[in-house]
Amino acid sequence: MSAPANPNPPEPFDAVDVIRAKRDRDELSDGQIDWVVDAYTRGVVADEQMSALAMAILLNGMSRREIARWTDAMIRTGRRMDWSGVGRPTTDKHSTGGVGDKITLPLAPTVAACGAAVPQLSGRGLGHTGGTLDKLESIPGWRASLSADQMLGVLRDTGAVVCAAGDDLAPADKKLYALRDVTGTVEAIPLIASSIMSKKIAEGTGALVLDVKVGSGAFMKDVESARELAETMVALGTGAGVRTVALLTNMETPLGLTAGNALEVRESVEVLSGGGPADVVELTVRLAREMLAAAGVDGADPADALKDGSAMDVWRRMISAQGGDPDASLPAARETHTVLAPADGVLTSLDAYRVGVAAWRLGAGRTRKDEPVQAAAGVELHAKPGAAVRAGEPLLTLHTDEPARFERAFEALSGAFVVAPEGSRPDLPPLVIDRIG
Amino acid sequence: MSAPANPNPPEPFDAVDVIRAKRDRDELSDGQIDWVVDAYTRGVVADEQMSALAMAILLNGMSRREIARWTDAMIRTGRRMDWSGVGRPTTDKHSTGGVGDKITLPLAPTVAACGAAVPQLSGRGLGHTGGTLDKLESIPGWRASLSADQMLGVLRDTGAVVCAAGDDLAPADKKLYALRDVTGTVEAIPLIASSIMSKKIAEGTGALVLDVKVGSGAFMKDVESARELAETMVALGTGAGVRTVALLTNMETPLGLTAGNALEVRESVEVLSGGGPADVVELTVRLAREMLAAAGVDGADPADALKDGSAMDVWRRMISAQGGDPDASLPAARETHTVLAPADGVLTSLDAYRVGVAAWRLGAGRTRKDEPVQAAAGVELHAKPGAAVRAGEPLLTLHTDEPARFERAFEALSGAFVVAPEGSRPDLPPLVIDRIG
Repeated sequence: MSAPANPNPPEPFDAVDVIRAKRDRDELSDGQIDWVVDAYTRGVVADEQMSALAMAILLNGMSRREIARWTDAMIRTGRRMDWSGVGRPTTDKHSTGGVGDKITLPLAPTVAACGAAVPQLSGRGLGHTGGTLDKLESIPGWRASLSADQMLGVLRDTGAVVCAAGDDLAPADKKLYALRDVTGTVEAIPLIASSIMSKKIAEGTGALVLDVKVGSGAFMKDVESARELAETMVALGTGAGVRTVALLTNMETPLGLTAGNALEVRESVEVLSGGGPADVVELTVRLAREMLAAAGVDGADPADALKDGSAMDVWRRMISAQGGDPDASLPAARETHTVLAPADGVLTSLDAYRVGVAAWRLGAGRTRKDEPVQAAAGVELHAKPGAAVRAGEPLLTLHTDEPARFERAFEALSGAFVVAPEGSRPDLPPLVIDRIG
Repeated sequence: MSAPANPNPPEPFDAVDVIRAKRDRDELSDGQIDWVVDAYTRGVVADEQMSALAMAILLNGMSRREIARWTDAMIRTGRRMDWSGVGRPTTDKHSTGGVGDKITLPLAPTVAACGAAVPQLSGRGLGHTGGTLDKLESIPGWRASLSADQMLGVLRDTGAVVCAAGDDLAPADKKLYALRDVTGTVEAIPLIASSIMSKKIAEGTGALVLDVKVGSGAFMKDVESARELAETMVALGTGAGVRTVALLTNMETPLGLTAGNALEVRESVEVLSGGGPADVVELTVRLAREMLAAAGVDGADPADALKDGSAMDVWRRMISAQGGDPDASLPAARETHTVLAPADGVLTSLDAYRVGVAAWRLGAGRTRKDEPVQAAAGVELHAKPGAAVRAGEPLLTLHTDEPARFERAFEALSGAFVVAPEGSRPDLPPLVIDRIG
């Protein structure tokens, strides 16, 4: 005799019941959240079930309690790192992603030079936004993968380590992130916040500064949604015992004068040499001060660390410790093409998203995970919004190893910049729009 | 040199763009709908993408134009049948599913006896609702699968054929239906309406009567949503050239006195013999009249066809034509258990859903597609709401081949019926609540 028909599976919850609850605007219980995140990681909840749930979360939202529990459940699918052996307070920064956002490169060594430790697990680029690991990999010999022991060694020796997250760090998030990308469920604040914060909390940092980008080149196009995301993440970090602060920063136009892997490393080295574009320097110093304050480290000034060579010293040791040669020449593109200013006047806007797409199409970015990127490809800016330009002067230089890519990059740049009559005064948003926490 | 990075796939649309459009409450274009339905059937749109889209449709709705196009796109993934060679007007009925709903069994031969042809592609049960094919398969020898030629032959010879739909009938719907079942996206009126109507339109019937069930044992629990579903389906059928009418009928309590495969065949044969429960006879006659009117066939009265043996004649030929023996004994359950009335009084309610779940748990239904069902399992009612009962009299008899199933069936029946003090007058809804079309 067979067992009686049992509509309930042996699991404590049923995926369809959990989906229906969120679909019908009920709050999910702690038990439901713990189970669905864990069961999805185990493969018991199928991709098509999780994507339906993700869409219901996107459309119906989640309470702060649900988001905190979801984040914690994702952390518990993997391990939480511990840096108590480093001997200095740890502090990290996370950016929600933008165009030309190379800030981690000068920032991590600057903060280390000022006395805190920066254990940064970083990512690769997708679409029009670049990834820190892709940028660092344009340095000959540098490698992103370290074991936990190697990571601790570099952090102890140099004060800063930037490397790839291991597979055991919030594996639920890794799986869910890939799913959201193909199911139109990326833009859900509960899912964005829990994805970022699960990794950062599991990473084990004691303090965290969030750089929430706002504008055309960012995920968050308007200040209101950026603020909601920032407040959600600050609450998650604080609730998990991480001293967390967020800055809302402008991403209507690219950061600095470069978008592309080696191009951005070159610019970062300029900043570490005491030069570089004003906006990159300003944001590096501002974020460094926030990171040090959150870590409770005071005394040294990040602006000094950039000027006196101490940040550069950490950079050189940090790159060498991961196999990179800080003195090696960076790859240069085989082909370049320069876009000239069409008229005399004032550059009133230069759109971050379009520049990002152009850099992506030139080969700097990837369309699918695991696609290779070109180290040397990207876009170099010769002027920033607010600058006076002369007809025929270079405005942008496009870099690529494959000239067939120029055409679609030009398409992306059509309408990307506005040159207004001389005397125009563009209304430029401040670099730092707000501070939360 | 490799091709330029291209964020657009070679397909004319991108699944994520289509999902995002519905997520953001845009109407989908005809091109988007045609593509996403076809590409899902081809496997280019993945299950996890379609389930996210289904959830967005459930939560954000679809316009009548979108639903009509979606239905048509599903039809075009397969073939549309043609009964012009039958020589009589074709007419069919579809029920949205209920408990004890064996109406097709007496109805199809009755309508055929009155001069129309009934080409019914039917389904199997899932969960607490039974399936017509499961019921007929309790007749020794009867087989559900026919080729299109065999189907035409039976229809021509007998005037009625009830069989399984081939894999080439709206294959998109087959795939989507299975997906919705596991992703909490069954209860979306656009998806329910397009699922039912894509199959019925592709089936090629010239006229169609929809029996939209309302109440605890039905998908639609309230009259408003049942009316919306009925109006949507009538519009879809009419738009596709099928003369379509809908009745909203009561499913608060089971239809007739039996729920279970062989039990329902036995009851249907009683109706075809001129007897049987009043509600089954009433609904059979009412639906038959609607089907004949929609097909433009008048003259013969379905009530007469049940009394004079002409419907029974068609039944016998129809069952024989598909290998069944209309004179064979039906399977009887190995074990039965009777539930007694707890008090003298009036049975004021007997909940359809709970009786359906009990029959399912006794073995009459299935939890997963392709699970076998027991022919003899089910629930027999000895009284209907409104009847006077005496303490200790039989109220229900449970049938199963496996006595271990009784316990969970009893659980399902807890609170399923109410016996009120003598003299109570229950407020019973009419059998036919409304007519649309």
